Amino acid sequence: MSGVHSFVRNQWYVAAYGREVGRELFDRTICGESILFWRTEAGEVTAMADRCVHRRFPLSESPSRLVGDTVVCGYHGFTYGADGACVAVPGQTRIPRTARLTSYPVVERDSFVWVWIGEKDQADETLVPRAPWLDSPDYTTVCGMEPLAARYMLLVDNLLDLSHEAYLHAGSIGTPEVAQTPITTEVDDEAGVVYVSRHMDDAECPSFYARSTGIEGRIVRWQDIEYRPPCLYLLHSRVAPVGSYPAEDGSDPEGFHVEVVYAITPETGTSTHDFWAVARDFARDDEEVSDFLRESNRTVVLQDVEALDALEKVIATEPEGYQELSINIDTGGLAARRILTRMAQAGQETPAAKASA
Amino acid sequence: MSGVHSFVRNQWYVAAYGREVGRELFDRTICGESILFWRTEAGEVTAMADRCVHRRFPLSESPSRLVGDTVVCGYHGFTYGADGACVAVPGQTRIPRTARLTSYPVVERDSFVWVWIGEKDQADETLVPRAPWLDSPDYTTVCGMEPLAARYMLLVDNLLDLSHEAYLHAGSIGTPEVAQTPITTEVDDEAGVVYVSRHMDDAECPSFYARSTGIEGRIVRWQDIEYRPPCLYLLHSRVAPVGSYPAEDGSDPEGFHVEVVYAITPETGTSTHDFWAVARDFARDDEEVSDFLRESNRTVVLQDVEALDALEKVIATEPEGYQELSINIDTGGLAARRILTRMAQAGQETPAAKASA
Amino acid sequence: MSGVHSFVRNQWYVAAYGREVGRELFDRTICGESILFWRTEAGEVTAMADRCVHRRFPLSESPSRLVGDTVVCGYHGFTYGADGACVAVPGQTRIPRTARLTSYPVVERDSFVWVWIGEKDQADETLVPRAPWLDSPDYTTVCGMEPLAARYMLLVDNLLDLSHEAYLHAGSIGTPEVAQTPITTEVDDEAGVVYVSRHMDDAECPSFYARSTGIEGRIVRWQDIEYRPPCLYLLHSRVAPVGSYPAEDGSDPEGFHVEVVYAITPETGTSTHDFWAVARDFARDDEEVSDFLRESNRTVVLQDVEALDALEKVIATEPEGYQELSINIDTGGLAARRILTRMAQAGQETPAAKASA
Repeated sequence: MSGVHSFVRNQWYVAAYGREVGRELFDRTICGESILFWRTEAGEVTAMADRCVHRRFPLSESPSRLVGDTVVCGYHGFTYGADGACVAVPGQTRIPRTARLTSYPVVERDSFVWVWIGEKDQADETLVPRAPWLDSPDYTTVCGMEPLAARYMLLVDNLLDLSHEAYLHAGSIGTPEVAQTPITTEVDDEAGVVYVSRHMDDAECPSFYARSTGIEGRIVRWQDIEYRPPCLYLLHSRVAPVGSYPAEDGSDPEGFHVEVVYAITPETGTSTHDFWAVARDFARDDEEVSDFLRESNRTVVLQDVEALDALEKVIATEPEGYQELSINIDTGGLAARRILTRMAQAGQETPAAKASA
Repeated sequence: MSGVHSFVRNQWYVAAYGREVGRELFDRTICGESILFWRTEAGEVTAMADRCVHRRFPLSESPSRLVGDTVVCGYHGFTYGADGACVAVPGQTRIPRTARLTSYPVVERDSFVWVWIGEKDQADETLVPRAPWLDSPDYTTVCGMEPLAARYMLLVDNLLDLSHEAYLHAGSIGTPEVAQTPITTEVDDEAGVVYVSRHMDDAECPSFYARSTGIEGRIVRWQDIEYRPPCLYLLHSRVAPVGSYPAEDGSDPEGFHVEVVYAITPETGTSTHDFWAVARDFARDDEEVSDFLRESNRTVVLQDVEALDALEKVIATEPEGYQELSINIDTGGLAARRILTRMAQAGQETPAAKASA
Repeated sequence: MSGVHSFVRNQWYVAAYGREVGRELFDRTICGESILFWRTEAGEVTAMADRCVHRRFPLSESPSRLVGDTVVCGYHGFTYGADGACVAVPGQTRIPRTARLTSYPVVERDSFVWVWIGEKDQADETLVPRAPWLDSPDYTTVCGMEPLAARYMLLVDNLLDLSHEAYLHAGSIGTPEVAQTPITTEVDDEAGVVYVSRHMDDAECPSFYARSTGIEGRIVRWQDIEYRPPCLYLLHSRVAPVGSYPAEDGSDPEGFHVEVVYAITPETGTSTHDFWAVARDFARDDEEVSDFLRESNRTVVLQDVEALDALEKVIATEPEGYQELSINIDTGGLAARRILTRMAQAGQETPAAKASA
């Protein structure tokens, strides 16, 4: 599996949930870059390199601290503003012109903090992909993040081929029909989106949906994946009693809708931040349902984490040039790989290289 | 110490005791290859690569499982027969022609499961070296296996030079005579066997033999080593009261015979499976003697393990080209190295290379 | 940060406190060399390679042991005298001519055991730098050693720029004046010594000095650093009530003098033995003051250790060619780096290379 360290650059990545970033100094490594996050007194999230320009002390590490809208290095007191510019150094009043932390474009949207990894002048807020359910008043959301000791491509593979639910998640969200029902895959090469759909007209209802919706008996179960590489994965999930479909006008009073959202953020070449959220449009004030879905989905995510961590260990010892075998269920995952490879190459081109190309 | 990763291929290796392999999926890494073992319903041991051809999930890892004489991958349900051929994949009926796990020739003999590492068509069961005492009705055996965090050559060195018993194992199996008595070494280059003998006519009786045989006073002690590289090491040990020798016809009523067997199986370039067994022809139904010999020999093996693990750490930090100093006691070990080097080279030749040579 | 593994050779290094070396076998790695220390029956410290010439067993590891003035290897019984020469091997009376452990020149002075790393014939005892306070009857000393998981250069940087006291050690030895007061730096290029002075005429008295001297109110505080690369760092510290200075004849009855001594000994390319000692000429019999200074200084050292360990981790992941930014406070540290670089180059020249140069 090649390309471990070729991150896809010039892209927006989910760095955190908004609630994770406050008036405490907070570090997260994204695509191999150690980034410091904090919120100004006015509530704006800032992002800058988590390494003092002087002697590389991590600004997230005690006794570094926030003083108003500046961060003071805990080693020698170098002090930086919210834009990363140094505003004070010890023992002298002159501040060197180059004393400035790399800052990162940041957008807070749909409950996430998104950070731009790449050339700053290409950061375009309109390119941030959306997951509006997560802070919509019409949905109730449970969410979390699990650290994954595996490269992000393994999680992309995992999520684009849900037939694994029938085996790895048997008994919670998986039933035999998930592996047996063929998928349809569509790739929008221009927009760079992969769609994978699996519509089951008569399926067993897994406990994940039985207990949360109250449906007894068999179901119509739709899984409509929409992957917006590199970071955002949406699973539009619809379950309803057998025979029940949306009306022609789109109304769907008998359907239960769950928007499962993953943000897939590379930490290093072989580790990943696995953000997951489950938004529903039913039983919205039912705490028991929230608790059940939170625990169930976390269990499912941890089953994936355990499996993918095992795969990363297998990769570490396998011979150069080992070849996987792919079948129909992998169509979506293979399309995703192609797009990611193209994106990685594009992100490594410098503006100058592009101009001369 | 060069050649860390040049395993000796085209050889039989002990992978496990037969009793370790049953209807549970069982993984062991042999010469860097991760191998899955299980027993069919008819009781045959099978060996195949422990990595699903699809997305490399380890077949030994939960929730992978045995269903009859097939193993079902816990990730997406790829299913394999006892010969490694894939018999089912998810979402389609066509099974790709190349969907097949590498299988390994296996022989169960003398209580061991032997596996052939190398070119399958060269696997010849008559080449499996023998240790018949281990399941002979005329002997009682205690045995075990200890993991060693050191390259197998260090264990070969250790076992071919028993003078270390006088120091590393003083008080249990070592007495001063072991280090003081010269050895005789014979090398059968054609068969690839190293013989090292040390015959002591008047030696202190170490507790290992005093407590198990009941001999009081000094002993005749013979240590006749027979090493069949790479994997099988036999120590034919005879102790008897001073002055007592076998008769001309070979009968030896006053001698106590212990066959100490080691199987030395490389796990990785710097770790080893250290199988050990002690078979005796006396006090055969005496559980106390069995318990004592099991505990004593395990203690001795663990002293070796601790020492060899320390050596591997020394090697990790020593300068390139560091030279050891060898003396007379090392004659057997040096002969073994020469044979192993020759075997490693032979095992790396491809059939084509051999043909053109 | 380049030059991780280019130790400064042909130099004296502190290997241990004298009290650490006795009739137990003792190993310490200095500049990547694993060295065995023990004291002869006559009380002389010996130093030799901690690796048996035969099969590289560590002579510091049980069951190796001292027998009189010889050390017996715990693996096969190779036996060495205090000069490193082998005096006995197992199974034969002839001792190979080359059976000899590398020995190291050793000097015991000022409570330290100094060892010479480099060409033995260049070891000149008169070059051992001095810290006479440590075993002077006119001073009382507390001391210790902390292992540092960081390259020694980071500790040199740390100690030559004490402005960090105001941040990393705020509240114990640091006050704002330390960061605010400019330094003067002098470099004696011929002798290879760096001097950095910071004289504060009216400073807050940190608890470290308030509690040990009993001074109430503000102080004159002098910090006079004398660094003798690579290993010995001296901080001549004077505190006195504001307005109080030494007389013209050098007498200084109102001054409190503390000699802070660090020995900076590389263990490996990325770890260091951080020896520290605090010698004072006041309250010399006061155990409470000794206890307080021991605990306080150890706390300060551990704050440095935690910070420098963090820096080493940052270095491990930072891009090639990363550049720090230096300011006035770094003048001493940069001078030290220049001298160390020069010394490292000189130490790597062979005598032959020097002759032809």
